[in-house]
Amino acid sequence: MRSFRLALAQINSTVGDLQGNVRKIRDYIDYARDLTADLVAFPETAITGYPAEDLMHKPAFLRDNLAALQQVVQASKEIAVVVGFVDADEDIFNAAAIASNGKLAGVYHKIHLPTYGVFDEDRYFRRGETYPVYIIAGTPIAINICEDAWYPVEPTQIQREAGAEILVNINASPYHSGKQLDRERMMATRASDNKIYAAYLNAVGGQDELVFDGASMIFNPEGQILAKGASFEEDLLVSDLDLDALLRSRLKYPRMRTGTTHGLGKVVMVSEFQEKSRPRLKPHPTPTSLGRTAEIYQALVTGCRDYVVKNGFSKVLIGLSGGIDSALTACVATDALGKENVLGVTMPSRHSSPGSIDDSVLLSKNLGIEIWTIPIEPAHSAFQNMLKDQFAGTVAGVAEENIQARIRGNVLMAISNKFSWLVLTTGNKSEMAMGYATLYGDMAGGFAVLKDVPKTMVYELCRWRNANKLPANAVPYNIITKPPSAELKPNQKDADSLPAYDVLDQILKAYVEEDLDYGEIITLGFDPALVQRTIATVDRNEYKRKQAAPGLRVTSKAFGMGRRFPIAQRFLR
Amino acid sequence: MRSFRLALAQINSTVGDLQGNVRKIRDYIDYARDLTADLVAFPETAITGYPAEDLMHKPAFLRDNLAALQQVVQASKEIAVVVGFVDADEDIFNAAAIASNGKLAGVYHKIHLPTYGVFDEDRYFRRGETYPVYIIAGTPIAINICEDAWYPVEPTQIQREAGAEILVNINASPYHSGKQLDRERMMATRASDNKIYAAYLNAVGGQDELVFDGASMIFNPEGQILAKGASFEEDLLVSDLDLDALLRSRLKYPRMRTGTTHGLGKVVMVSEFQEKSRPRLKPHPTPTSLGRTAEIYQALVTGCRDYVVKNGFSKVLIGLSGGIDSALTACVATDALGKENVLGVTMPSRHSSPGSIDDSVLLSKNLGIEIWTIPIEPAHSAFQNMLKDQFAGTVAGVAEENIQARIRGNVLMAISNKFSWLVLTTGNKSEMAMGYATLYGDMAGGFAVLKDVPKTMVYELCRWRNANKLPANAVPYNIITKPPSAELKPNQKDADSLPAYDVLDQILKAYVEEDLDYGEIITLGFDPALVQRTIATVDRNEYKRKQAAPGLRVTSKAFGMGRRFPIAQRFLR
Repeated sequence: MRSFRLALAQINSTVGDLQGNVRKIRDYIDYARDLTADLVAFPETAITGYPAEDLMHKPAFLRDNLAALQQVVQASKEIAVVVGFVDADEDIFNAAAIASNGKLAGVYHKIHLPTYGVFDEDRYFRRGETYPVYIIAGTPIAINICEDAWYPVEPTQIQREAGAEILVNINASPYHSGKQLDRERMMATRASDNKIYAAYLNAVGGQDELVFDGASMIFNPEGQILAKGASFEEDLLVSDLDLDALLRSRLKYPRMRTGTTHGLGKVVMVSEFQEKSRPRLKPHPTPTSLGRTAEIYQALVTGCRDYVVKNGFSKVLIGLSGGIDSALTACVATDALGKENVLGVTMPSRHSSPGSIDDSVLLSKNLGIEIWTIPIEPAHSAFQNMLKDQFAGTVAGVAEENIQARIRGNVLMAISNKFSWLVLTTGNKSEMAMGYATLYGDMAGGFAVLKDVPKTMVYELCRWRNANKLPANAVPYNIITKPPSAELKPNQKDADSLPAYDVLDQILKAYVEEDLDYGEIITLGFDPALVQRTIATVDRNEYKRKQAAPGLRVTSKAFGMGRRFPIAQRFLR
Repeated sequence: MRSFRLALAQINSTVGDLQGNVRKIRDYIDYARDLTADLVAFPETAITGYPAEDLMHKPAFLRDNLAALQQVVQASKEIAVVVGFVDADEDIFNAAAIASNGKLAGVYHKIHLPTYGVFDEDRYFRRGETYPVYIIAGTPIAINICEDAWYPVEPTQIQREAGAEILVNINASPYHSGKQLDRERMMATRASDNKIYAAYLNAVGGQDELVFDGASMIFNPEGQILAKGASFEEDLLVSDLDLDALLRSRLKYPRMRTGTTHGLGKVVMVSEFQEKSRPRLKPHPTPTSLGRTAEIYQALVTGCRDYVVKNGFSKVLIGLSGGIDSALTACVATDALGKENVLGVTMPSRHSSPGSIDDSVLLSKNLGIEIWTIPIEPAHSAFQNMLKDQFAGTVAGVAEENIQARIRGNVLMAISNKFSWLVLTTGNKSEMAMGYATLYGDMAGGFAVLKDVPKTMVYELCRWRNANKLPANAVPYNIITKPPSAELKPNQKDADSLPAYDVLDQILKAYVEEDLDYGEIITLGFDPALVQRTIATVDRNEYKRKQAAPGLRVTSKAFGMGRRFPIAQRFLR
């Protein structure tokens, strides 16, 4: 039987940490060699991390990335290696190096450069123009990168027609809820249409607003999944591909020969087939299938952990309001960093209900995290006195409410500055959309864990956490059931200012995630006046979001790098 | 004599204000018709404003833009009109409409789509593929858009070879210091290389981080400037172009005929030549040539005014520290909005020098602006007490300093929220680079006027303002001469934490504006350790800048939309 042992190393690179990334890559090469793999592949730009953005304007960065590649190439002994890097000559390319026997055997340049949503590849890269096939251990392999696999003809079909029997598509594909299904369908189609083994390798880990979810996959030529990597964790997925079976199924393709060119696909010899006796592979454990809610929760945990750790922090603090958003943020942080690395701070004011404090204390007791209580009344009165002449004769309103939120922001930031702990903000996507948050107040902090989580999903995640993670029922029942309130004035409720969240979140999903406009949304059956008001409110609050902390993207469109709106503009529908 | 009367309307569109923009365009059409112009041109995307960004994802926006275009087309009676809009069918294009006799005669699609710096056109637009020439009033005219004119061959040369005698290049080209010289050289070359009249029409006015400077130009076929529009102001630049002179100089080109195609350039008939008796044009006043400093000052005034006004504010407030940054910000705001629309707020603390208050009072007296004094001691003591248990046993440092800055931010924002006045922040580019600013403290506010002005340029601008604008010497001598200090602890000076500004600003210019890296900068003769420390400090403070207020770009590269750096990254050189 002619077979090929393919290893996919889904690793967590850190942007700019070239030496750290190379160390990790070399470790995985050793691991795959021990398993007698013919080829081990690493994600898109695994050497630099993704996205490196304007770091790619630094000549030293590009040079060091090439030097780092050399270190990887040298490690390709007794195994072939495919690794993503930035090819830099007169232009720069999003590239995959193919190395074997300690030598660079070829470089593939990504052809389709996504420039939409969170992607800006046309800003940086020139597109590739060749469709090579590499013969590795006697087996013709098509290498391509991420977006390349989403197109039916070029490059995959061309590479297949040039004789490729296995497609290795390397990715740095950021997670959002529902994306894995799209990937599966796309790769299954690519495999079965071309009658080719198709491997989808994804990066893993958080990078600023993005989280890569791994979940790499290997498909057989019928488009069925042979093996699947873990979600949100580093993993080495190794699989034996039966090439004799493939040959039976693809008789229409010519038997390709080294050095020849079939159409646009040039064939490059990397390494000959060698008879090896190798140990039988243990089947890769099938990862537990995460449900939608579990998957989002895990994305939040991973993204939160990596933002904190990759920025050099070990501990975080969170203002606990007694509400559900800060409760969920505390759960995520605790699961990401450990209870000893999370501090809750409760900052009662004259408008805080006693229940809010009790609920926060109970939450932190449940999670086992420390809690500090710092009443803000002294500062609150001081501000009132400081501004009493200027505010004389005015009616108390948003100005007075925001003062309290900003005092709390100041307290949290003072603790952050004093002890070098990172402040996590707690606002959710519904609030961020509607500007129902105080700039420099509750919006003050380094990372906004729930920034892309709609309020209705916050409830869902809390209930899921309570039912599925230890300690069970960490979020007190009272926090889940009480009506949301900012508690910045007596008897305040979110419902006084905002539409009901179940309706609001549907309109926001249509407007923000699905990019529908007023006319399209009202045809879905929502009240036209409410839709109009919602859209205008979202657009008018762009100025707040421009100054918001970065936060994790978990939906198809988040407020952040993937959504670019002007501030000064007058089209509010 | 065969001549063509060309009018360039450099107008200030507002993004998304389709009706407002159309009103303005129609007013200028009337104005140009009264002057018997053959053609009046408007800037790139004059109908939608530039850049409309993700507004272009809204079908209603695209539709309304097309309807707005129809209103402009209908106004093209007795005059031809060229106007920038967004052409939307299955794809969207950055487009110029050519209208005459109330009808749409043609549409040109921009060919070169900039996707670098502040430009993201590949995200939105598909590139054009045709090179039409329009015969307007019997004269063959090449229309193209912005970046198109920066390429020697396509489209301009192709349009010239198809018979064009006049090039009308419409722009929304954002200002930065030194850019006008590049534009002049480029257009002069385009004109003389092609022996063609070449008109460069630019938009005017501020749009978030960008300011368009106008300064439109018309070149003769020898590459000399015939006429020039005002800088930073709306203007209608009208000029009679002597086409007989042109014919003598371009005998090598075939006499073109309507309907024929020369190479790739298709010729489209718009309107026949008509003998008109027309009044002699008064020569366009030659705008005063602004020096470099005056030009930057004017950019700041224009950008500040438009950000405030286009966002619906009329009045601003500024924290006056007694330092030069807030003094210059107050000058710019006063010149932009009028003294009655600027409020200074001085917020002395226990660490403020008496001189700081006096200097701020004198500054506001000189400018004629109101000043409020709100001492922050009550809140400062309150915070100290609130945190005394948590901070017990620690050494006072940045945490204690920042508390004061954040109290001031809270005061300014409370006034802003109470009276609906916009807070202008006062930090300069050198501070923003080095993170020498307090998040949610002095960084709190809606617009950062000096965000792209290096500290050394702040001094230059103050001296220029004192010498050239009334009231003269508004910035007190003491503010200009005292050593910069944040006054957050006793005897604090910027020089304790930062390199001398004259050296620092040179390193920052090399690193940020010129994109040089460590190795390149030390070859310029700077101390390697200082360069290393500066670069690392700039990169590590990306997290602060991600939450900074938007501010005006005045250099070739600003912190903001044109510079995209990851936060979590480890390449610090």
